[in-house]
Amino acid sequence: MKVLILNSGSSSIKFQLIEMPQEEVICSGLVERIGFKDAILTYKTNANEYKETLEIENHQKGLEMVSANIMDPEKGVVKDASEIEAVGHRVVHGGDAFSATTLITDEVKDKLREFTNLAPLHNPHNLKGIEIAEKIFASAKQIAVFDTAFFQTMPVKARKYAIPNKFYSEHGIKLYGFHGTSHKYVTEKARDYLENTSNTNIITVHLGNGCSITAVKNGKSIDHSLGFAPSNGLIMGSRSGDIDHSLIFYLVNDLGYELDQVNKMLTNESGMLGLTGYSDLRDIEAEAEKGNADCKLALDMNVYRIKKYIGAYVAALNGLDAIVFTAGIGENSSYIRQEVCTDMDYFGLELDKTKNDTRSKGIREINKTSSKVKILVIPTNEELEIAKQSYQLLH
Amino acid sequence: MKVLILNSGSSSIKFQLIEMPQEEVICSGLVERIGFKDAILTYKTNANEYKETLEIENHQKGLEMVSANIMDPEKGVVKDASEIEAVGHRVVHGGDAFSATTLITDEVKDKLREFTNLAPLHNPHNLKGIEIAEKIFASAKQIAVFDTAFFQTMPVKARKYAIPNKFYSEHGIKLYGFHGTSHKYVTEKARDYLENTSNTNIITVHLGNGCSITAVKNGKSIDHSLGFAPSNGLIMGSRSGDIDHSLIFYLVNDLGYELDQVNKMLTNESGMLGLTGYSDLRDIEAEAEKGNADCKLALDMNVYRIKKYIGAYVAALNGLDAIVFTAGIGENSSYIRQEVCTDMDYFGLELDKTKNDTRSKGIREINKTSSKVKILVIPTNEELEIAKQSYQLLH
Ligand SMILES: Nc1ncnc2c1ncn2[C@@H]1O[C@H](COP(=O)(O)OP(=O)(O)O)[C@@H](O)[C@H]1O
Ligand SMILES: Nc1ncnc2c1ncn2[C@@H]1O[C@H](COP(=O)(O)OP(=O)(O)O)[C@@H](O)[C@H]1O
Repeated sequence: MKVLILNSGSSSIKFQLIEMPQEEVICSGLVERIGFKDAILTYKTNANEYKETLEIENHQKGLEMVSANIMDPEKGVVKDASEIEAVGHRVVHGGDAFSATTLITDEVKDKLREFTNLAPLHNPHNLKGIEIAEKIFASAKQIAVFDTAFFQTMPVKARKYAIPNKFYSEHGIKLYGFHGTSHKYVTEKARDYLENTSNTNIITVHLGNGCSITAVKNGKSIDHSLGFAPSNGLIMGSRSGDIDHSLIFYLVNDLGYELDQVNKMLTNESGMLGLTGYSDLRDIEAEAEKGNADCKLALDMNVYRIKKYIGAYVAALNGLDAIVFTAGIGENSSYIRQEVCTDMDYFGLELDKTKNDTRSKGIREINKTSSKVKILVIPTNEELEIAKQSYQLLH
Repeated sequence: MKVLILNSGSSSIKFQLIEMPQEEVICSGLVERIGFKDAILTYKTNANEYKETLEIENHQKGLEMVSANIMDPEKGVVKDASEIEAVGHRVVHGGDAFSATTLITDEVKDKLREFTNLAPLHNPHNLKGIEIAEKIFASAKQIAVFDTAFFQTMPVKARKYAIPNKFYSEHGIKLYGFHGTSHKYVTEKARDYLENTSNTNIITVHLGNGCSITAVKNGKSIDHSLGFAPSNGLIMGSRSGDIDHSLIFYLVNDLGYELDQVNKMLTNESGMLGLTGYSDLRDIEAEAEKGNADCKLALDMNVYRIKKYIGAYVAALNGLDAIVFTAGIGENSSYIRQEVCTDMDYFGLELDKTKNDTRSKGIREINKTSSKVKILVIPTNEELEIAKQSYQLLH
């Protein structure tokens, strides 16, 4: 069964066609700069990679081009749209209405519209992708896989903020979480690896441009560092993560900033970028190596924050079997992994430096054999997770 | 040597006269509702307690009345102002200029004026207290003891926020910390108790109306839960503690609140009050006992937050010798202490329930003898700490 995975953003569409349950990627690609004269379409099959620069006015046109490529007599991989049995859509925010992958109906779309204000940068584009796909792949089942679903099991005490109750009950202000598809995917890989599907205490550390960390007890998330919006917790590429919220009042009332400026500053000009001038961790590591003190300090701050969250989640779990590193930084930065696992022996962590420094594409264990806690690197694959969940829903 | 301790607030002055180094309290009291027709003066000696309701127009008049009581031929405890050799002032914010107790000079007062905007609710009143005391107790040395001083040893990585560097370097936006005098006092008591003045990893948990927690390595603070202002970290009587800061933008931009309303809400209407309608923990415990679900949940949230901070600080310390509970709730609520220490055996905590339930005024150990980590209850005494530091400065 062929499942098309779609991830529609504000100006881009990422796609992958996966044969399930074999988990074989048939083709994949990306439409970027939608709405511009110099939009870019990248399309990759097992045989070739194509890249075109051309005008793509809107998402409708973008997805039509994706479909035309997939079904092209020469470079295509399927003959007819009907061969695609399901389209799995990444949906960032499912509010509290969706705790699992869902077949998309008109009611589901209505509900998603309700959550638009909770994820204004994502949900409207996810919805647009759904509506266009319904037309182009009319015979396929349309399925929504929610980033927030994995966090619906979290206890209320971890989801609620200590502000007046009405904001929780009337306005739905609580922790929803993000990167759930990634945390779920690596959790399940880790549990398979540990050959233990019950009684596991795992902490999954997703370090990409966005960063988050999840405490997982027996496969269910019990706490998570991103909250109502993807702004707090760990230090990210350009987002501050945790701050003393009183700074916002001080910046506006005492330093004369506009509230919107402060919001933009905390979202786009903070984190590693604000501390170093760079947002790509490779640059920051290289600069620190050369002696750049800002870069060194920013790395220290970043690592320190991760360590503190690990400690906090060990308290939440009252135990720890494995720490899992994933996403761009988690999979590739042996430096960050090493620093996070240094001076953590009170928790039972013993990193094996040689294993940590050895690169590999698969899942790997980088702790010493004597380590009480396993330290794992597991490449995330959100598209595959969406395909798996879509396939499971239909079987 | 007699030291007068003064803590001047916006509408109150707390005082204590202490004989040093004997640490004997000679008299103590409080002027409340300064500026009102029905202000209250409480004055307590070892023999008697006096309470008067009368008009007290301003702090000057208030402190004059305190001095008149202390030197009163009948109820007084000293004959002449000159018997008071030092006045120790509690000063909330010392910025980065003061990392230790300081003899007050004109330069010191000028510096303190500079920090007014960092602690607008406290420093101006602390300063006013100093200026009046200089007149009334003209022969005494005036000494400032700073709440922030204990946190000046914290490493930059724990004090800096992940926002653009200029806010740190140009505007002094960083963690300053609060309740430092209390954390320092109980830290030293704990280190004496442990008979170990080096290599100790201690976490001090100050739970009063304001709540904070400090990680202390070898007697020096290395991390602390309150930051730039006393707003984040643990859940407090009416303050939220940690929130996802994006809530502030959502409340203003989507729900139509004024920024000042949000500030007020997070400071005065949140925390335990916002979650339960009560801010006094005794009421909340009693209501929870009777089955009030909001109160039960708020207690769970409060405890859960403390546990996570303990975990985070164990990571920061990479070890743990003792946890110290102090202040109104920490000293008196056996329920909160018990819940915080439940399911924390991964850290080596074993509470002794009988010892925890036994009330006492002194320092006490409430862990099982088998516990790897000591759990201590140490009554705080900020006035005595100020007296000690004032005495030390002059000797
Ligand atoms: N070899 C590497 N060493 C350190 N960091 C890396 C390496 N490769 C990728 N990264 C970092 O991964 C981050 C992007 O992660 P990714 O998971 O792709 O992000 P996104 O959240 O956009 O999916 C970037 O900060 C990049 O610097
Ligand atoms: N026996 C008790 N049980 C539970 N809480 C108590 C008890 N006694 C005092 N408290 C709580 O202590 C808090 C005040 O602590 P305190 O240290 O006096 O505050 P402040 O920060 O104003 O100095 C209040 O919330 C009060 O309910």
